[in-house]
Amino acid sequence: MTYCGICGSDLWFYRGLTPLDSGRIGHEFMGVVEAVGDGVRNVKRGDLVISPFVASDGTCPECRVGMTRFCRNVRFYGTGGYDGGQGEKVRVPMANGTLFVIPKSNLDDHMMRTPPLSDVLSTGHHAAVCAEVKQGSSVAVVGDGAVGLCAVAASMRLGATRIFLVSTHEDRAALGKQFGATDIVAKRRDEAVRQIKTATHDLGVDCALECVGTAEALETAFGAVRIGGDIGFVGVPHDVPDIPVPKLFSTDVGVKGSGAPAAHYIPELMPDVLSGKLDVSAIFTKTIPLSDIAEGYKDMDKRKEIKVLVKP
Amino acid sequence: MTYCGICGSDLWFYRGLTPLDSGRIGHEFMGVVEAVGDGVRNVKRGDLVISPFVASDGTCPECRVGMTRFCRNVRFYGTGGYDGGQGEKVRVPMANGTLFVIPKSNLDDHMMRTPPLSDVLSTGHHAAVCAEVKQGSSVAVVGDGAVGLCAVAASMRLGATRIFLVSTHEDRAALGKQFGATDIVAKRRDEAVRQIKTATHDLGVDCALECVGTAEALETAFGAVRIGGDIGFVGVPHDVPDIPVPKLFSTDVGVKGSGAPAAHYIPELMPDVLSGKLDVSAIFTKTIPLSDIAEGYKDMDKRKEIKVLVKP
Repeated sequence: MTYCGICGSDLWFYRGLTPLDSGRIGHEFMGVVEAVGDGVRNVKRGDLVISPFVASDGTCPECRVGMTRFCRNVRFYGTGGYDGGQGEKVRVPMANGTLFVIPKSNLDDHMMRTPPLSDVLSTGHHAAVCAEVKQGSSVAVVGDGAVGLCAVAASMRLGATRIFLVSTHEDRAALGKQFGATDIVAKRRDEAVRQIKTATHDLGVDCALECVGTAEALETAFGAVRIGGDIGFVGVPHDVPDIPVPKLFSTDVGVKGSGAPAAHYIPELMPDVLSGKLDVSAIFTKTIPLSDIAEGYKDMDKRKEIKVLVKP
Repeated sequence: MTYCGICGSDLWFYRGLTPLDSGRIGHEFMGVVEAVGDGVRNVKRGDLVISPFVASDGTCPECRVGMTRFCRNVRFYGTGGYDGGQGEKVRVPMANGTLFVIPKSNLDDHMMRTPPLSDVLSTGHHAAVCAEVKQGSSVAVVGDGAVGLCAVAASMRLGATRIFLVSTHEDRAALGKQFGATDIVAKRRDEAVRQIKTATHDLGVDCALECVGTAEALETAFGAVRIGGDIGFVGVPHDVPDIPVPKLFSTDVGVKGSGAPAAHYIPELMPDVLSGKLDVSAIFTKTIPLSDIAEGYKDMDKRKEIKVLVKP
């Protein structure tokens, strides 16, 4: 194991909200292959590899259309008897579909840039893809966590020319600006919507990226998006009200989202990550040894750090 | 007035479901310009022109992003003191944004092909656009009315390589095949979904086009579309249940729809309509003189005809 991130969703176990059967968790990892099973052809001993946050076979109909998160044989690290990445080693199932080789040239330069591909960067990119971000788009990102910040960077990469980041935290807003946000909206709800509308001729943005999963965040996205625009949502929905179909019909707003098909995106994003064009390594505000992992969880839980990286 | 169609939505007045203030209705028309107001620059006396089903100014922020149906000054024919097209003449408001000139060369050839642009063809195209139909897409069209049939033709034009048409009416199914449907699904609800799934490796289609507006049709679309696919819906929703956000999140299905921005689509579709590449004139199963309009409404009401065209 070279690196494994601590994810916001790992905190559900930490806080006791989700029961944990046994074994280790951690689903944002990269490392060096020590041994492979008989059927493994895509990676070999010695390869530096990265895994998406779920394992997928790469061959089922869903995987073949790029929906690897919905693989018919999808496996979740740390559940159902599967190992997790917050440890010295991990056993990865279905390695052919799951692991991606990272070229080792100039390794020091890009070592820290790569881990976000496994989850948060692919997820932010998915928000942008679902919201149809393209050259010239105006974008509003709701949520200034690691995923929201990655959504800013992904939107920038896809050619967005105006990117509003809704953020009331100065440090996160500063990172958002570094990643490409052109406008920081330091308000919430109606006030945030009003600022975005005022700045867009009372039209709203082409694309709203909901990266939280709350009713408030989705409502802000609906308020910020223009007639005929698109909402991409990647926050796992928690107590979000149902969407009335006439609300969509009377605005032509598109809604799409889910857990990201990271295995589908990694090959596309990897070159830009390695070259530094898409560098979100600054979301890791702290790197700790495995022995300090309890402290890492505590810092994430108290929102002291945006994201903690574990280096076993 | 050269032609004016009778629309399914005109029947709401005919049946007494929607009150009619006064004057004429009809919003699917083409004709020859007799006189223009002072500010009109885009059309002149003698031009053969077609109108979308609503009038729009073409200059407001929504119009400028192509959402002409949501023009800030949108006007509906036959309501609010505005004239309608089922008569000898019609006064068109905001002609600069609303009327489009039809070239008069080879007029006889394309005369009948053009009227569907004003509403049903643009609406079917909108369903396909909202559902992201593109080269190689697999498509399911739910609804075999004029809009559904036009959605088949629009999907074909956009490059769909497999088009399922859900239709239990033999005559409409035959027209669907003529327009490009590769598979007729002569079942409803779960049975229709099962047939489509079976024919697509249990995956479903990339794009489902809901062209009815009922709960059953939308549910069929949800059943037929694959993980990560898109639903475009253009049927005005009637008693359709709200959509749970987790239902979207757990399938990555996108949902988008509205009344079509016909004024935005007409310039794009017109060349293919004129050349015959996109010819849906066969949806007009009857053409009548204005004096027979009562009979035309009766035939539409009893679903004896798919669509009636009035030739004043």
